[in-house]
Amino acid sequence: MGRTTVLLLLLTLLTPGAAIRVPPAMKALSSLRWSTSFTSRGTVAKKYSIHYIEQKVNHFGFDADKTFKQRYLIADEYWKKNGGSILFYTGNEGDITWFCNNTGFMWDVAAQLKAMLVFAEHRYYGESLPFGNKSFTDSRHLDFLTSEQALADFAVLIKHLKKTIPGAKNQPVIAIGGSYGGMLAAWFRMKYPHIVVGALAASAPIWHFGNLVPCGVFMEIVTKDFKRSGPNCSETIRSSWDAINRFARTGAGLRWLSESLGLCTALTNTQDVQNLKAWISETWINLAMVDYPYESDFLQPLPAWPIKVVCQYLKNPSVSDAQLLQNIFQALNVYYNYSGQANCLNISETTTSSLGTQGWSYQACTEMVMPFCTNGINDMFEPHSWNLREFSEDCFKQWGVRPRPAWIITMYGGKNISSHTNIIFSNGELDPWSGGGVTKDITDTLVAITIPEGAHHLDLRARNAFDPTTVLLARSLEVRHMKQWIRDFYANQRKKH
Amino acid sequence: MGRTTVLLLLLTLLTPGAAIRVPPAMKALSSLRWSTSFTSRGTVAKKYSIHYIEQKVNHFGFDADKTFKQRYLIADEYWKKNGGSILFYTGNEGDITWFCNNTGFMWDVAAQLKAMLVFAEHRYYGESLPFGNKSFTDSRHLDFLTSEQALADFAVLIKHLKKTIPGAKNQPVIAIGGSYGGMLAAWFRMKYPHIVVGALAASAPIWHFGNLVPCGVFMEIVTKDFKRSGPNCSETIRSSWDAINRFARTGAGLRWLSESLGLCTALTNTQDVQNLKAWISETWINLAMVDYPYESDFLQPLPAWPIKVVCQYLKNPSVSDAQLLQNIFQALNVYYNYSGQANCLNISETTTSSLGTQGWSYQACTEMVMPFCTNGINDMFEPHSWNLREFSEDCFKQWGVRPRPAWIITMYGGKNISSHTNIIFSNGELDPWSGGGVTKDITDTLVAITIPEGAHHLDLRARNAFDPTTVLLARSLEVRHMKQWIRDFYANQRKKH
Repeated sequence: MGRTTVLLLLLTLLTPGAAIRVPPAMKALSSLRWSTSFTSRGTVAKKYSIHYIEQKVNHFGFDADKTFKQRYLIADEYWKKNGGSILFYTGNEGDITWFCNNTGFMWDVAAQLKAMLVFAEHRYYGESLPFGNKSFTDSRHLDFLTSEQALADFAVLIKHLKKTIPGAKNQPVIAIGGSYGGMLAAWFRMKYPHIVVGALAASAPIWHFGNLVPCGVFMEIVTKDFKRSGPNCSETIRSSWDAINRFARTGAGLRWLSESLGLCTALTNTQDVQNLKAWISETWINLAMVDYPYESDFLQPLPAWPIKVVCQYLKNPSVSDAQLLQNIFQALNVYYNYSGQANCLNISETTTSSLGTQGWSYQACTEMVMPFCTNGINDMFEPHSWNLREFSEDCFKQWGVRPRPAWIITMYGGKNISSHTNIIFSNGELDPWSGGGVTKDITDTLVAITIPEGAHHLDLRARNAFDPTTVLLARSLEVRHMKQWIRDFYANQRKKH
Repeated sequence: MGRTTVLLLLLTLLTPGAAIRVPPAMKALSSLRWSTSFTSRGTVAKKYSIHYIEQKVNHFGFDADKTFKQRYLIADEYWKKNGGSILFYTGNEGDITWFCNNTGFMWDVAAQLKAMLVFAEHRYYGESLPFGNKSFTDSRHLDFLTSEQALADFAVLIKHLKKTIPGAKNQPVIAIGGSYGGMLAAWFRMKYPHIVVGALAASAPIWHFGNLVPCGVFMEIVTKDFKRSGPNCSETIRSSWDAINRFARTGAGLRWLSESLGLCTALTNTQDVQNLKAWISETWINLAMVDYPYESDFLQPLPAWPIKVVCQYLKNPSVSDAQLLQNIFQALNVYYNYSGQANCLNISETTTSSLGTQGWSYQACTEMVMPFCTNGINDMFEPHSWNLREFSEDCFKQWGVRPRPAWIITMYGGKNISSHTNIIFSNGELDPWSGGGVTKDITDTLVAITIPEGAHHLDLRARNAFDPTTVLLARSLEVRHMKQWIRDFYANQRKKH
């Protein structure tokens, strides 16, 4: 899987009719799997054991009693049976070993929380495929890919762990997740407060649904990131679209574009040009998500503060079209060719992984309906309105299902969540997803932590010498809350006996 | 529907192997529909309007986009757009017009709460059949009969009402239900606290699952009701089973039993005798549930405090078998022939309604797995242990599904529910279901109200001149809590603006 879908998503990313068929951020979210990633280079291998639990394919029906194997990982090096805790990673759209190896925060705090680490794979991702290689063949096989089923898996798994691991029974469990996994962590606490004492929901855009936030907020933050990273940077990008359009009018122009941008495959028609612009937009989005303060080996190897590096090439929006696009090419190369290994740029890819995006594409077409739009004024992109009807048609064509945009709000409460307790919502201000996140305290126990210099869930990453003070502060606050939940749990337990 | 299923349930109610295949209380719960019932005699017709909402058959999957019409009723005579509220009846296993006409409490408090009354029919009951007359044909059609789907229906309906009824949008909604409907009310508040500000869960045995309470508690309370209602009453019933067994040994004995008990159909074999005992047991159970302080026209027309009347015939356990069973016959006649109209007793029926029990039988075989047992010592019944395996086999034979006894506890928290707020659990101490209910305060806002002289959700019934003081007190406490929730809601709303 992987390649063809990425291509497919790219092909439908931006449409000529000024409508975003598959919105950029949907693709962006499908890339979130990458956002805590390192390659093995520079990453200390984590010690964990691999397990499987037999889960019902359908927790909410009894006709088909079919089961599947859900994978989960356990790391208990620092776990203490006496007074310990369980940190439970609510796996999101990707391979769980990858999340396990790359959510350094949990490993960094394991000792002080005497914590067992559990990483649960989300159904339909990694090895946890309810119907094996048929899982994505049609809407019938995909019918059990929902957040509700995933949360039920987590609940059943935790009950199983408490029953089978001696010493685990009377310990507090804390849900931790980032991005979609952060949403799952928050929702898990909301729906199963008897199973987890609290949740750390990092960079969880739980309000990026319906009209809870303006549809333009995501791309505005992307733009702001570029604006603050260099003089005229966002203006230069804003100018680039028309420059591309002007070149695209003639065959000679298309040839020039293909050559000057070093594309692997020459542009030949209007659709190719749409794809080019979509691919470039996605590159800026990805850079905004991963604008980390230190060198990281990510979608591609990247320098520290990569947008700053990119912006060094984008200082002047008023040069000739040719010059401007050559500068854009230089900027793209920061992302795609920091290592100097690439011979040409392939606009069908923005990531190098073989991890598929099928699962998330389906989820975005059903429950996870996030409206995105641009106006070219508050953001640096070409204007595109959010068109639910068109989106629904595309979903129906691709998956045979139609989105239910109101459902997530009905299910999880939208902005009306104040009756819940013990959830930390952390957001980096650089992260475009923070626009759909909870960035202000709701109550004493539903708290927001913002990290001014943080990109997408920087706080969940392993500690690093170049971490800004703000993320160190965020992490220490998070630990303080978690310790409080653990203390409360044990205090309540003592009260009962 | 109806008749054959009742027969079927009776046939499997008690088995020779001292095991309860389909436990008495499952049948008992399937009779709960009756427990707030009056016939039209003596009941003032309620004014309501009938509505239908298009609901997804499957809220938790996107493959089949099929919908069905859910019925609901609205009574808004006392509703005030300014400062009013919405009382939402979470319909349980029966026709909603019947619940509407017989939940007098809601009508009695509508004016003081300026409340709109909404009665939502539970899917697969009444007219709200997802697949019309095919709804019960097989496990595939029944696959969407779960409490989770029902709660989702309620949530979608309330969102719809708030959107479409001018003035409803910014009003607090309170969930109210009795018995299984009471469980739904409580669970609704737990899972959708953003939609209802609180819940009144009357006679809701939310702990009658797994081993949260001893499996014998239900029948012990039935027994207690008979014990307190007359000297030697429960002892006489306890003696009756062996008396029946002794008669059942010979053909002549069977003939004598059939005649002396005035049965419509003569007993001919062992299975018939099992059915007879099951039917008699069920009669005592039903009496315990409806032991109301005033005359009521219920399963059958009944006198006030019917168990007391029954016990007048059951004062002496030490008489001859023949005399004892003739006394039992007199006692049964109080229940089945108070009106004096019956020519014979039909052991395939304990109720006179045509309301079916198919839906509940399926639910009991899937999610609503309530263990029941008797030992003949703490209760007045023949000993029967709870045998999950046998129960599962019977469910598989009848519905093609198997129960998941742990699921409800995983889903709704079992006894670990203290993080929720604003739920009143009311229970009558005479009600056998109180054994599985919440009868002690859990927190300041998760409160228990017990009614010493109350049978099954007496508090939800219309006020009556013969209401004991304890139920008046319970109702006034309930109203006080509801008013507080409404005040809190409006206070929070003002704070926001």
